[in-house]
Amino acid sequence: MPTTSALPDDIAARLKRDDRGLFAAIAQQWDTREVLMLAWMNDEALAVTLQTRVATYFSRSRNALWRKGDTSGNSQVVKEVRLDCDGDALLLLVESAGPACHTGDRTCFDSGLILGGAA
Amino acid sequence: MPTTSALPDDIAARLKRDDRGLFAAIAQQWDTREVLMLAWMNDEALAVTLQTRVATYFSRSRNALWRKGDTSGNSQVVKEVRLDCDGDALLLLVESAGPACHTGDRTCFDSGLILGGAA
Repeated sequence: MPTTSALPDDIAARLKRDDRGLFAAIAQQWDTREVLMLAWMNDEALAVTLQTRVATYFSRSRNALWRKGDTSGNSQVVKEVRLDCDGDALLLLVESAGPACHTGDRTCFDSGLILGGAA
Repeated sequence: MPTTSALPDDIAARLKRDDRGLFAAIAQQWDTREVLMLAWMNDEALAVTLQTRVATYFSRSRNALWRKGDTSGNSQVVKEVRLDCDGDALLLLVESAGPACHTGDRTCFDSGLILGGAA
């Protein structure tokens, strides 16, 4: 039986990982186009995400796979995944079941305005 | 005369930098909400960006500040900057003067579809 952690060879070959084997993953709400959060993935997290269409990241603080929503209920169904031109960042278009941020905010950027007001 | 590289103390205190002193910066086109690219900043890059409103990143390959558009002409005027809840990622709303990707694509994710077709 195939495992759930096999990443297709052509995708694995295009990824550029950092020293910890990680790459960045941007989650964007597919319809409103809100940028919800930035998280991290390793090969296994991406493989699981591609196979299950449920966003699964790698928690750097817990050093383990993290299926978004397992604790909060706010899972993300994945509609599309794109790899960037140099292979070190992913863009996920998702349907977020609730607030994406652990603070309860809709996105992880809602409370963090540090420059605004451009004409 | 103040230098252009001073980051306000309250912002500097909220940033979480990686081993190289860097944090991620997502550039999003302010009106269409396209995610254009993921780049990196250090404190100086962010300070210059906040002061000039021209997106300035840190090039990991060249190990130097990189004012987007100096070579390509495709600069990014910054309308808004937001820091995320855990301080290790920024979201920049920008007006991109042309293609954001060095390949000539509108975004760095245009050519990289690896999962699509969800109902």
